[in-house]
Amino acid sequence: MVNPADGPFLAQLDGQLPKGTLRPVAQRYLEEPRGRYHGQAGAVACPATVDEVSVILRAANATRVGVIPYGGGTGLVAGQVCPDGALPLLLSLERMSAIRAVEPAGNVMEVEAGCILAEVQAAADAVDRLFPLSLGSEGTARIGGLLGTNAGGTGVLRWGNMRDQCLGLEVVLADGRVMHGLKRLRKDNMGYDVRHLLIGSEGTLGVITAASLRLVARPARSGAAVMVVRDPAAALALLGLAQARLGEGVSGFELISGVGLRFLDEVMPQIRQPFAARPDWMVLVDLGLAEGLDPAQELERLFELALEQGLVADGVIAQNAAQRAQFWAVREAIPEANRLIGSISSHDVSVPLESVPGFIEAATAALARLGAFRINCFGHVGDGNLHFNVFPPQGRARSGYEALHRPVMDLVHDIVASLGGSVSAEHGVGRLKVTDLERYGDPVAVAMMRAIKAVLDPHGILNPGAVLRG
Amino acid sequence: MVNPADGPFLAQLDGQLPKGTLRPVAQRYLEEPRGRYHGQAGAVACPATVDEVSVILRAANATRVGVIPYGGGTGLVAGQVCPDGALPLLLSLERMSAIRAVEPAGNVMEVEAGCILAEVQAAADAVDRLFPLSLGSEGTARIGGLLGTNAGGTGVLRWGNMRDQCLGLEVVLADGRVMHGLKRLRKDNMGYDVRHLLIGSEGTLGVITAASLRLVARPARSGAAVMVVRDPAAALALLGLAQARLGEGVSGFELISGVGLRFLDEVMPQIRQPFAARPDWMVLVDLGLAEGLDPAQELERLFELALEQGLVADGVIAQNAAQRAQFWAVREAIPEANRLIGSISSHDVSVPLESVPGFIEAATAALARLGAFRINCFGHVGDGNLHFNVFPPQGRARSGYEALHRPVMDLVHDIVASLGGSVSAEHGVGRLKVTDLERYGDPVAVAMMRAIKAVLDPHGILNPGAVLRG
Repeated sequence: MVNPADGPFLAQLDGQLPKGTLRPVAQRYLEEPRGRYHGQAGAVACPATVDEVSVILRAANATRVGVIPYGGGTGLVAGQVCPDGALPLLLSLERMSAIRAVEPAGNVMEVEAGCILAEVQAAADAVDRLFPLSLGSEGTARIGGLLGTNAGGTGVLRWGNMRDQCLGLEVVLADGRVMHGLKRLRKDNMGYDVRHLLIGSEGTLGVITAASLRLVARPARSGAAVMVVRDPAAALALLGLAQARLGEGVSGFELISGVGLRFLDEVMPQIRQPFAARPDWMVLVDLGLAEGLDPAQELERLFELALEQGLVADGVIAQNAAQRAQFWAVREAIPEANRLIGSISSHDVSVPLESVPGFIEAATAALARLGAFRINCFGHVGDGNLHFNVFPPQGRARSGYEALHRPVMDLVHDIVASLGGSVSAEHGVGRLKVTDLERYGDPVAVAMMRAIKAVLDPHGILNPGAVLRG
Repeated sequence: MVNPADGPFLAQLDGQLPKGTLRPVAQRYLEEPRGRYHGQAGAVACPATVDEVSVILRAANATRVGVIPYGGGTGLVAGQVCPDGALPLLLSLERMSAIRAVEPAGNVMEVEAGCILAEVQAAADAVDRLFPLSLGSEGTARIGGLLGTNAGGTGVLRWGNMRDQCLGLEVVLADGRVMHGLKRLRKDNMGYDVRHLLIGSEGTLGVITAASLRLVARPARSGAAVMVVRDPAAALALLGLAQARLGEGVSGFELISGVGLRFLDEVMPQIRQPFAARPDWMVLVDLGLAEGLDPAQELERLFELALEQGLVADGVIAQNAAQRAQFWAVREAIPEANRLIGSISSHDVSVPLESVPGFIEAATAALARLGAFRINCFGHVGDGNLHFNVFPPQGRARSGYEALHRPVMDLVHDIVASLGGSVSAEHGVGRLKVTDLERYGDPVAVAMMRAIKAVLDPHGILNPGAVLRG
């Protein structure tokens, strides 16, 4: 379908761009964090302006060359690596990394797609505001990729996911046309919401070059606690208690399993854990409260109420910011521990809140019938979003389990689908879940997606093979 | 382009539907609240099931008959009335009004498109939850129309607009295919977000038949106050103060002008007003706080701080729920007072927050150069969304000002556009603002909209003439 990004095309494109924009492909662009895919590319284009992005796409569209938009490279579903087919051009936004404006009075900032999330957070912090998206890879992930994948993370419970942070977009379409949509408005009902269509389309409908982002008030008082919960159902009941008292004051609510804590013991013993006896389940509760409320007192009251109801067995309330950071460090180390141990299959799933306990029970039981595994189930339980990752028994390496990768995934995903869940809650489809979208997606919705893709990118040059089969 | 919904078509369709589904057109379906448009229709179809909606659209699509989806009829931009062209079929969702499920543990409910907003609010209330969309017409407006127009209202500041309340949709496409997308998930990144594309498309891309809606925790403690502010800039500074202390605890923040208060004196003297001397500007501050905070105390503290900074001159804090309701009654009476007085032109605009004072000043000055008018500027100032409505001088009727309708609108909208604002913040495009979308919309975004419309509704049968010119 598409042509390779090779000699004549690259030579011609090179002549249309400032010297140094087209570069040879460094190895790092071809890898992805979980090591399941290895990419290929004819060159990396590193434009410095939206006009250069437009030139690149116009040329690629005319010559039918595939283009892979590239952000921070942290995606977990191989949306950023193209392992086969015609050699594509990588389009990295890394040089478009300016923070164009920060407007605390309007609670808004405007940034280029190559901005790193941590830099955006810091810029908000500098004007006493919060940019509320937060996730493990925030030191590397870039705004364009976060928008392209509608990233989630630990702040979604209170502040929503990446699409909820975005007020406007500048986007280059497949044919090089530029949509200037950098509105800074809370409300705008002028026609179809193409912004939301582009967010989460994983670079298959257009290339995001800049965005206006909302800022929020920084909570006046912050605090955190870890609590040992009886089981996932108790975790959800605890969340209900907390929200009934504190509403949006509950900024984060993360479930952590004993398997995950023992993984830390195994491969990251330097991580200091709050409970000497590793509990089967614990939650990290993070509060951001109004002036006039004391987070430690509120957490203590919450713990007492939960204790009366038999939901919790133990708890530690952070006495200061350092201890709060320590609790978060436990949570944030878990993906790295998972990586070091090596999963057979990882699942980023969501189910309706009330189905969370049933899902964990059903999937665990079904896997037990398939073989002996370790399951590290953790994540954003307040969003119904679990990372349900399956590992070999202790002492066995993932390399012997390649044949089980797809059967394990199908088993888990079938249970998710039977509960009305999603088999990609926050990571996206990429290349890893193309067949899952076909299998579990509503057929009419998928037909709409195909129709939209065909009309906005008729030659299929944008991220070929991602989201929808080419 | 489309054919009329007349004899042979209606006879054939009647045979495919249960008796009584097709009905003669009662007058009320052909009117809209502001009396600017008068509709026409060949018949009203009142299906009771999604399958019947599918039958109707399949038939209309095959015969190229235009279909106007109809909710509560409260839209203010004539999206629900078709004044000219081939006689359309009205498709009213009023009989699909079931609340299919309410699930407090999952903070979700599933309702049909014909449900009236107030009934949805009541069903949430009955399980101790809040459905947070709130607007003046909530006793009449239906969920399908609220989703179709992405309605706003007074709770957007804290909880977002209608699209933010929707977790999933059941939709019938132009050709009768049914998208079963009633997911109940907080996070779902499985492909393009067709849900957000359909929300706000005003029935031009599909007919929404049911939705799953999120519920939120009801704030533990509520309260309200009205405060006399120096000017709109002081109102925004007061909002900043309130949010810095209370974050999302600020549930509502409405600006009300002295002109609006005097309109009430003129045509609705039964409305009890809080300030004997009508101030030039006042705000209604509504709080919904966590357990442990006293709203009246917080409002008092806020008032004191604002007084120190010279932002406010007077204030009344509601002493009980009845007084809080009384404050809201003042705010909610203003649109009716406007209707009774009769505007030359009404504008539902938004600008970046920091541009609100500048916009009011510039538009007021420009109108003064055009003639003598009364301007009632009020609304959701915390969202940057103002209703900036222009009236004849006291004692003059709107009927003498027809020729000024468009010049006044263009003048106001040009200023909005120059500030990067939107000329439809919450009401939508309908038929009233089709030319505004062409004039002020980003041309590439509008081209995308046209391409999407062409591929999802190739015969243009869905709400012809709304949003995009046919």
